[in-house]
Amino acid sequence: MIDDLREQVHAAARRARVAANELALATRERKDAALHEMAAALRTRCAEVLEANAKDLEAGRAAGLNQGLLDRLALTEARVGGVAAGLETVAGLADPVGEVLRGSILPNGLELRQVRVPMGVVGMVYEARPNVTVDAAGLALKSGNAALLRGSSTAEHSNTALVAILRDALEAAGLPADAVQLLPCHDRASVTHLITARGLVDLVIPRGGAGLINAVVQQATVPAIETGVGNVHVYVDASADLDMAERIVLNSKIRRPSVCNAAESLLVHAAVADEFVPRITQALLARDVVVHGDERFARDQRVVAATDEDWGTEYLSLDIAARVVDSLDEAVEHIAAHGSGHTEAIVTSDLNAARRFTTRVDAAAVVVNASTGFTDGGEFGMGAEIGISTQKLHARGPMGLAELTSTKWVVWGEGQVRPTS
Amino acid sequence: MIDDLREQVHAAARRARVAANELALATRERKDAALHEMAAALRTRCAEVLEANAKDLEAGRAAGLNQGLLDRLALTEARVGGVAAGLETVAGLADPVGEVLRGSILPNGLELRQVRVPMGVVGMVYEARPNVTVDAAGLALKSGNAALLRGSSTAEHSNTALVAILRDALEAAGLPADAVQLLPCHDRASVTHLITARGLVDLVIPRGGAGLINAVVQQATVPAIETGVGNVHVYVDASADLDMAERIVLNSKIRRPSVCNAAESLLVHAAVADEFVPRITQALLARDVVVHGDERFARDQRVVAATDEDWGTEYLSLDIAARVVDSLDEAVEHIAAHGSGHTEAIVTSDLNAARRFTTRVDAAAVVVNASTGFTDGGEFGMGAEIGISTQKLHARGPMGLAELTSTKWVVWGEGQVRPTS
Repeated sequence: MIDDLREQVHAAARRARVAANELALATRERKDAALHEMAAALRTRCAEVLEANAKDLEAGRAAGLNQGLLDRLALTEARVGGVAAGLETVAGLADPVGEVLRGSILPNGLELRQVRVPMGVVGMVYEARPNVTVDAAGLALKSGNAALLRGSSTAEHSNTALVAILRDALEAAGLPADAVQLLPCHDRASVTHLITARGLVDLVIPRGGAGLINAVVQQATVPAIETGVGNVHVYVDASADLDMAERIVLNSKIRRPSVCNAAESLLVHAAVADEFVPRITQALLARDVVVHGDERFARDQRVVAATDEDWGTEYLSLDIAARVVDSLDEAVEHIAAHGSGHTEAIVTSDLNAARRFTTRVDAAAVVVNASTGFTDGGEFGMGAEIGISTQKLHARGPMGLAELTSTKWVVWGEGQVRPTS
Repeated sequence: MIDDLREQVHAAARRARVAANELALATRERKDAALHEMAAALRTRCAEVLEANAKDLEAGRAAGLNQGLLDRLALTEARVGGVAAGLETVAGLADPVGEVLRGSILPNGLELRQVRVPMGVVGMVYEARPNVTVDAAGLALKSGNAALLRGSSTAEHSNTALVAILRDALEAAGLPADAVQLLPCHDRASVTHLITARGLVDLVIPRGGAGLINAVVQQATVPAIETGVGNVHVYVDASADLDMAERIVLNSKIRRPSVCNAAESLLVHAAVADEFVPRITQALLARDVVVHGDERFARDQRVVAATDEDWGTEYLSLDIAARVVDSLDEAVEHIAAHGSGHTEAIVTSDLNAARRFTTRVDAAAVVVNASTGFTDGGEFGMGAEIGISTQKLHARGPMGLAELTSTKWVVWGEGQVRPTS
């Protein structure tokens, strides 16, 4: 049975390779036409999607999923319209394939170019939200890749309906349906088979909680990109404009607490602690944020005393860890010890402090005087994103179309050979 | 004992992290001064190196190493001078750290820049040649990374002497000696500990035979880059200039048969087979190349009949697999089935054929009318290389200084927050 599943995943990967070879040669025109076809089909067949989604929601309620998960699972006509519009946005983006990154004529006359090419077969492992199915398929298609989608069993009916529609649209547009395939989702082993299909799959991107991401990264032999765990800090410097600091802390924490770019920890320079600690504590509490504070913060009885664990926790909820530090360097050290390399922000009016912080903090994004919420492919002008990488290899930060490509060196000569040394 | 070794490797990685944090902030001036200091020290203390190398050679002879391995192990005053000169070349290259890759002002006024930053701690696992020790240390230093070097036990004395000299030079130049460290080499387990030290080590690059590279890639939880296996093809098209084809085939095969960019397979279009097969067979045999041919090639009694295995073999010796194909597409399919994604060349005078080949062949480098021997960091104008990546993630093809870096998004604002949606 397990071997059957393995063969099923591998067979899907082999079909994906054939499709990928065709996609790699597809012009932007053809890919964009398919994206528009997919968007139109999602709108036309929205009822099918909602019907399937209702089954998932019913099963989810029966299984006792919490309201947050049910919300993420739920589709509405507006949400389906939103993902369809997302596909049209992607169609409007430049084609990354064929972009020349470097090029020169070598002294011996060889013409050298480094051009972007698709990765090939990209696997996505993700949880709950069915909109990821469409987003991932669209970004993979535009960048010339075939997508193997391994969603969660909670969204099985929704994902099945969505993928059927996307595949029909691909065929209608004259591109191979196998460019988008849904993998079996009932057995954890299908994840294992996907992420160990070295040679069949070129890249795996896990999206979900820390547990999923760690499991994928630990087990994968296929190259994998670590995404999305964000233990994000806001550091309020001695020289900060405290009005700005309050605005940035609140926005970073509260805008969408469940996403990876939300702030989880607040560090306040001792020089402004007397004024800022009571003020920000009050503001956070007034917005129902639970403050897990060090001794300085915990002078306020409503603050929960922080434990060591709090500094390393990605709450993804209305909680924040808060600490007073004696210097910018102590803040940098705290971040180095506890951060996850996602986004780190400083609020300051001191140029030296800003430069020191941006140079010394090692993260995908380092932000001066702005909300941490801006770490996002859409905000960064990428048009869309497939995840936010927190690793240093290949892609770091929001991953758009370019991050789904590899490169190829193309060398044109006229008979050049290398002198024997 | 095993746990001791693990702790030894991890402790080295932690010291490397401290050194890397300092290197990341070092200016180009300081790094270049250290590279010059290292080069000078290698020349001054060359006798030490040769003495240590003599011990390795003696042990190697006693252990019955073949002449090829002994040659690769052997250092001379000229070779030490060569690696020292290599460090000076690296000093002359531009600093990749701080390079701005993308940047813009977002509609909301945020200033966004993507800048190159060092990877951090880079592990190298390599075989035999002690010059890799110096090359890797130099490239890592210039790109702001600390290097953990795991060479082979056959080169232990040489590597120990070289690293001692490099570390002294680093200190003399005011940079941390722990930026270059040699790991224990007698136990395979030190490789395992290095490549599983996730969080302590940022990148591992294996250099050596296919066995070593596969073992590293399979076991590593630290991001690893697959390098150097080259089952390289030269395809002679129907329209090829056969004089040029002969020159390119011979140069690709014979110039340095033991390196990864050497040709291992020859594909000849049926339309020119009658003329070219006897001609190239004769030319190869005259240069002591063993030709492993299909039926068409094997009509010559001196040709060895090729088995299926030959098509997938990286000989790294004076052997070549040779086959007649009926079309360019058959050549492309053969390469897709058997190639390792390193370098693939076509000899043709037909523009369509050249375009079809470069678009359809999926490899790090695709070459038209030139020797496969040009796939090399030095030849590509990178100044130096740390290996040739045959994977698609992060770096593909020759890896120079830029490929040893990651990036960081730096965002400057003046209090921007994201609207709550």
